[in-house]
Amino acid sequence: MMHLLLTLLDLGGTFVFALSGAMAAGKHRLDIFGVMVLAFAAGNAGGILRDLLIGATPPSAIAHLSYLGVSLLAGFIVFFWDPLVSRHNHLVLWFDAVGLAFFAVAGAEKALVFGLHPVMAAVLGMVTGVGGGMLRDLLVMQIPTVLRADLYALAALAGAAIVVLGHMLDFNTIGSILVGGLACFFLRYMAIRHGWHLPMARASQTHS
Amino acid sequence: MMHLLLTLLDLGGTFVFALSGAMAAGKHRLDIFGVMVLAFAAGNAGGILRDLLIGATPPSAIAHLSYLGVSLLAGFIVFFWDPLVSRHNHLVLWFDAVGLAFFAVAGAEKALVFGLHPVMAAVLGMVTGVGGGMLRDLLVMQIPTVLRADLYALAALAGAAIVVLGHMLDFNTIGSILVGGLACFFLRYMAIRHGWHLPMARASQTHS
Amino acid sequence: MMHLLLTLLDLGGTFVFALSGAMAAGKHRLDIFGVMVLAFAAGNAGGILRDLLIGATPPSAIAHLSYLGVSLLAGFIVFFWDPLVSRHNHLVLWFDAVGLAFFAVAGAEKALVFGLHPVMAAVLGMVTGVGGGMLRDLLVMQIPTVLRADLYALAALAGAAIVVLGHMLDFNTIGSILVGGLACFFLRYMAIRHGWHLPMARASQTHS
Repeated sequence: MMHLLLTLLDLGGTFVFALSGAMAAGKHRLDIFGVMVLAFAAGNAGGILRDLLIGATPPSAIAHLSYLGVSLLAGFIVFFWDPLVSRHNHLVLWFDAVGLAFFAVAGAEKALVFGLHPVMAAVLGMVTGVGGGMLRDLLVMQIPTVLRADLYALAALAGAAIVVLGHMLDFNTIGSILVGGLACFFLRYMAIRHGWHLPMARASQTHS
Repeated sequence: MMHLLLTLLDLGGTFVFALSGAMAAGKHRLDIFGVMVLAFAAGNAGGILRDLLIGATPPSAIAHLSYLGVSLLAGFIVFFWDPLVSRHNHLVLWFDAVGLAFFAVAGAEKALVFGLHPVMAAVLGMVTGVGGGMLRDLLVMQIPTVLRADLYALAALAGAAIVVLGHMLDFNTIGSILVGGLACFFLRYMAIRHGWHLPMARASQTHS
Repeated sequence: MMHLLLTLLDLGGTFVFALSGAMAAGKHRLDIFGVMVLAFAAGNAGGILRDLLIGATPPSAIAHLSYLGVSLLAGFIVFFWDPLVSRHNHLVLWFDAVGLAFFAVAGAEKALVFGLHPVMAAVLGMVTGVGGGMLRDLLVMQIPTVLRADLYALAALAGAAIVVLGHMLDFNTIGSILVGGLACFFLRYMAIRHGWHLPMARASQTHS
């Protein structure tokens, strides 16, 4: 049951990030194959990196076909119904926030299962959440938006930290995952809607 | 015998991609050491990524000296006889197509040996083929050509898929590798010579 | 004792490279979280890559909290006392040279402990030294300076090679590490102060 829930969270996050990867590819004139490659990279890089770091080889995204299937589905949707997706650009932004929440809590939970220190489990939850977007942006040559976007990585860390705290305090796992996921989504929501953000490095005001 | 054949395919691909990495370095005013680093990165990134993903650690390129030796040889050739290599630029393009074919079939075969699902074995064959070129392009700050070049990644996937199909149908392994490698080369040949290509994402026509 | 020495070398290198990552983030207007992410990435990417390649999972930087702590400390220092750090920019350059020396010798020693071939142990020492800076530069979209900077990667390789040679000739390990580290620092010093450099690829004079 627990295992099924985590797999569903992982696949949901994969689908949403694969959508974002395919849309980035479309904007850069890639052919249908480039679209699929970017969909798979964006949807799975975070989870693959997490699995390599915790020693879970081969990574789930390589060992199970479902991750590839979900990524290709997202790629086809963007490729063939792009106008549809484009018209609902804001919708994708919200999907992306949901995907970040999915990945952050699933990543933290899996790291705990593999026996990592709680603090690093929270960090790995964050890595799972932001990894796919980072690779997507690097492949199309942009400074990763997760390094710039307001409260993006912090929202992922907060959600992952709640899952870890719940685990340490012996709370119900599904409850922790729900609260952690909602907290991540809420922070991202406030950043998008109401401009919540963190202080900038002072250096930026002086040097650039 | 089988093992020897695969090693030869792997080393042949490494040599050709190392040439391409060294040439990219030369165009960006890197010193001799930068040339060697890019030669090694381009020649081995695909194979190292494959080995990490299938859990074959340490990767062949780290465990055996021959990969380093072949990469440095390619780097020296480009560094000291660059005018020679430059004059035969089209030759290198064909070498590159051969290297892609080598890596695609060797990567798929190795993934099968490590017990991966056939579909993912084909995907990993493709990853082996395109990984080196992607890192090379990222290091000199270009959108990876494998994401743009006509039928590049698809040719690698086709070659790898034929090896996997042959394995599932219990065909002769060497025969499958030959047919898969030739198919990959043929597709790439048609893309270079006769402009075969895949449809572009419609988004590109609207947005850019 | 030996293990403690290596851990100290590793943490010292992590701290210095984390400083450089945080400063790069500050120049690109990242928020405090982006600063921390770049500090951790620059300080630990080399060691994590080394550990993945030699099969030491989970990598030290994931398994032990101290690496995260040291990275965040460096991030906070740059974020809150940036003017202080900026005024001593040349000091950071020297710290960076010290960090390169730390990582090169620690990386080579760890690879030897894991039973790699001596030549590859030297290469992995170099990878440990230059990996963090490469990821830092990629994340802020610059051609990695380690590919351009004079005698940077070569200094790391020389230091690592001395550690490996000492090991093969059965010299005292601490002595080899000291000599290797000083050699790396000396080469980098001569490159910065007196412009020592390697020959450029001839291609650069013709093409660009």
